[in-house]
Amino acid sequence: MRGAVLYGPGDVRFEDRAEPTILAPTDAIVRIAATCVCGSDLWPYRGLQAYAGPTPMGHEYCGLVEEVGGAVKSVRPGQFVIGSFFASDNTCPHCRAGYQTSCQQKEFVGGAQAPLLRVPLADGTLVATPEVPSDDLIPSILALSDVMGTGWFAAEAANVRPGGTVVVVGDGAVGLLGVLSAKLMGAEHIIAMSRHETRQELARAFGATDIVTERGDEGAARIRDMTNGIGADSVLECVGTQQSMMQAIRAIRPGGSVGYVGVPHGVELKGEELFFAHVHLHGGPAPVRRYLPELIRQVWDRKIEPGKVFDLTLPLDQVAAAYQAMDERRAIKTLLRP
Amino acid sequence: MRGAVLYGPGDVRFEDRAEPTILAPTDAIVRIAATCVCGSDLWPYRGLQAYAGPTPMGHEYCGLVEEVGGAVKSVRPGQFVIGSFFASDNTCPHCRAGYQTSCQQKEFVGGAQAPLLRVPLADGTLVATPEVPSDDLIPSILALSDVMGTGWFAAEAANVRPGGTVVVVGDGAVGLLGVLSAKLMGAEHIIAMSRHETRQELARAFGATDIVTERGDEGAARIRDMTNGIGADSVLECVGTQQSMMQAIRAIRPGGSVGYVGVPHGVELKGEELFFAHVHLHGGPAPVRRYLPELIRQVWDRKIEPGKVFDLTLPLDQVAAAYQAMDERRAIKTLLRP
Repeated sequence: MRGAVLYGPGDVRFEDRAEPTILAPTDAIVRIAATCVCGSDLWPYRGLQAYAGPTPMGHEYCGLVEEVGGAVKSVRPGQFVIGSFFASDNTCPHCRAGYQTSCQQKEFVGGAQAPLLRVPLADGTLVATPEVPSDDLIPSILALSDVMGTGWFAAEAANVRPGGTVVVVGDGAVGLLGVLSAKLMGAEHIIAMSRHETRQELARAFGATDIVTERGDEGAARIRDMTNGIGADSVLECVGTQQSMMQAIRAIRPGGSVGYVGVPHGVELKGEELFFAHVHLHGGPAPVRRYLPELIRQVWDRKIEPGKVFDLTLPLDQVAAAYQAMDERRAIKTLLRP
Repeated sequence: MRGAVLYGPGDVRFEDRAEPTILAPTDAIVRIAATCVCGSDLWPYRGLQAYAGPTPMGHEYCGLVEEVGGAVKSVRPGQFVIGSFFASDNTCPHCRAGYQTSCQQKEFVGGAQAPLLRVPLADGTLVATPEVPSDDLIPSILALSDVMGTGWFAAEAANVRPGGTVVVVGDGAVGLLGVLSAKLMGAEHIIAMSRHETRQELARAFGATDIVTERGDEGAARIRDMTNGIGADSVLECVGTQQSMMQAIRAIRPGGSVGYVGVPHGVELKGEELFFAHVHLHGGPAPVRRYLPELIRQVWDRKIEPGKVFDLTLPLDQVAAAYQAMDERRAIKTLLRP
């Protein structure tokens, strides 16, 4: 088969790779119906994150089960499934506490930008949809593999409450779905921080009530102005830079909560500032698996359409163009069809 | 009158100071029944914290109202009162959210190691006891002015739950009262980290089920061992150094909570480590005022005895000896009687 491999900054190739096979009796092989490029794929693509040699890319996936190992009990060939970017057993103490991305057996699921994917710990990781979905549902189902669950976790970690004032830092797919999540959780004011018109529009479609274009301390000051000097109840930090993190922390009211899901790159926080800000801080790799059953139901019932974040669809063999479009911010998120 | 003034590292003097007077109509003057030395007083005493010239010391107090300004309505001369180390109006949005130490009008109450103290924003700050307390209740009431409320906030910030496993980093008065707070909140396992026998004993008296003497990463590893590799549900960080903070964060289970109340001194946290630890982080100057009515009731009904942390009582004019005893860890906490 042919799949995406990152060779270096800006250098994604679509090339021959060995087809995955069952390695452990708990594995499943999934035939990819759709995959995509993640904002986090752009860190190594931009040369901002170290990686060890040529790396098969992609960690968002849904598709038909092709084959399962002898120990797999909860999914069977022919079922349409979706899973998180981290495989998890869903039975260890961390999984039972709802933190499947910290599973004691966790394993990163890489190489999904390809026609076939091996998923470890299939019983704990994969969730089947009620039936094979119609084609128009696939983008929204694919979004549950990472970005929708990550936006949802950000909102949960930021303790979004009905009637609350919520700020979303970051207008990528995760930030935009953070807006949608905050709306679903009943937030009254949702302020999206964005400078891009198409993203602002989607933010509004998902429920944003206000748009702020300022960044950094200027952005935080703008939020204070808009909240009578009080600060926001909740801030979703969906970027992962020093600037975005401080922007989030400085926009919060005392006792408010920052939920951060952008993988921090070089972020350092001063204990004293956190202390006097009285901020609640929680985040990490989103335990997407925890939310799959509920979010699948909502997509299935057409109550939410997170797939709207895909504003570009390309055949898988044009994966290099998909990275380029996202890197240049011409696309919010690119869906790839094998 | 004579009161304590810090002149430099190790140099606390008991000397003439002007008697406080009503400066604003919202002020009250309190005649101190008892005051004490705080762990946080030791930072400047040890030369580890900058301060601007000779500083009147002390921020923990209880006593009789001597005089009130014209606008004060909720307390009157002759009442026995207690308040927090930060004056607060108790009506602004931050106060109403329960963060009185972030009050929009907050003012530090300094100079309590003296016979008389001016307390600003008296209506919002001071809470009267049901009657003038008997002498044996005074240490426990005084403890509510800071250390008991701070230990309580640490436990609340660390999300202590019935049946949970709780670790307390720091065996000063706040840490010990964090143990008591965790016990009152129903924690099943309470692990106190301490190397001092008298403090270990008091920790056990307050409800600690286990003592760990290791520190830093060794201490965190010991907690993992004791929890089957899972980590603690809650950690109370009651010191404020880089080592104690990392010890707390590294002892937590994914999804667990660190409540930190030791004023951070030079603490820097790496975003990436916090992210992958899946830790909840919350802390700050404890909003002691929030807890006063409930904690006064518990002391009044003799259900709790936080005053046990005072293992040395001295007349106020021996304040220099009080600092010395705490600095050399000969005393957990020194009570001073004018």
